[in-house]
Amino acid sequence: MKKIAIAAIVGIVTLSLTSGVFAQVKPEDQIKFRKAAYSFSAWNMGKIKANLEGAYNAEQVKAAAEAVAAVANSGLGALFSPGTEKAIGEQKTAVKPELFQKTPEVVKLAGDFAAAANELVKAAESGDAAAVKAAHGKVSATCKACHDDFKTR
Amino acid sequence: MKKIAIAAIVGIVTLSLTSGVFAQVKPEDQIKFRKAAYSFSAWNMGKIKANLEGAYNAEQVKAAAEAVAAVANSGLGALFSPGTEKAIGEQKTAVKPELFQKTPEVVKLAGDFAAAANELVKAAESGDAAAVKAAHGKVSATCKACHDDFKTR
Repeated sequence: MKKIAIAAIVGIVTLSLTSGVFAQVKPEDQIKFRKAAYSFSAWNMGKIKANLEGAYNAEQVKAAAEAVAAVANSGLGALFSPGTEKAIGEQKTAVKPELFQKTPEVVKLAGDFAAAANELVKAAESGDAAAVKAAHGKVSATCKACHDDFKTR
Repeated sequence: MKKIAIAAIVGIVTLSLTSGVFAQVKPEDQIKFRKAAYSFSAWNMGKIKANLEGAYNAEQVKAAAEAVAAVANSGLGALFSPGTEKAIGEQKTAVKPELFQKTPEVVKLAGDFAAAANELVKAAESGDAAAVKAAHGKVSATCKACHDDFKTR
C-alpha cells in the first residue's frame, strides 16, 4: 500500500506538469472537478465534430479547441490524489483503481492528450477543416486510450 | 410563453457570440455540461487564488487563466435552451427561471465574464502577480453578479 501511495503522489506531481502550489482540494471536490473537466472537454469535442459534419465556423472551432487544450493543460493530476479511487458521498467516479498504480502509463497518456490538444489548437487556428478533422481524430484517440485502460464505463 | 421562448432563443444565439453550428445537445446534457463548465472554471479560479496566497507559479496561473477564459468564451448560451429551467431526471440545476426571461441582462453578464476572463489571461501572461490579483477579483465579481441574480444557491 505504501508503494502505491508513493507512486500515486509521484504521479500527481508529474501529471501536474508544473511545480506550483495547488489549492488544497477536498477529495470529493477532486472527483467533482475532474469529472467537470472531462465533461467540459467532451462538450467541446462534440462541437468541433458538429462543425466538421455541418457548416464550419472557424471561430467556434478555435474556441472549442482552446477549451479542450485548457482542460488538457490544467494539471488534472492534482485531482487524482490517493483516496479518490472510489465514490465519496454522492460523488461517484468511473476511475479504475489501476490508474493510481500505473503512474508511468498514466503520465504518458496525459502527455499524449495534452500534445494532441495543443496540435488541435494549431489546426483550428489555421482554419483548415481537413487539418482540424485529423487533429480532432488524434485527440479522440487519446481520450479513448485512457478510457480503455482506466475508465470503468 | 411564446414571448419567453423567443427571448430565450435570441439569448442563446446572442450569448453564443458566434453564428456557427452547435451540436444538438440533449436538454439533460445541457444542464450537465453547463454545470461542468462552471465547476471547471471555479477550480481554476481557486488555483489562481492559491497561487496569489502562496508561492506564485506563473506557468500554472497562466494555464488556469486560459481555462477560465476558455469557459467564458465557449458559447455557454447554447446550454440554456428553453426546457432546461428545471431538473431533468438526475440532472439538477440551480438556475433561476428568470435567466430565461431577462435576455439583455444575461447577455451583458456573460459579456462581462468573457471580457474579465480575457483580461485575466493578459495579466497572467505578464507574470505580474498584482495585476493578476486585480484581474482575478474582477472575474470573481462577474461570477458573483450572475449568481446573485440567477442562481438559487
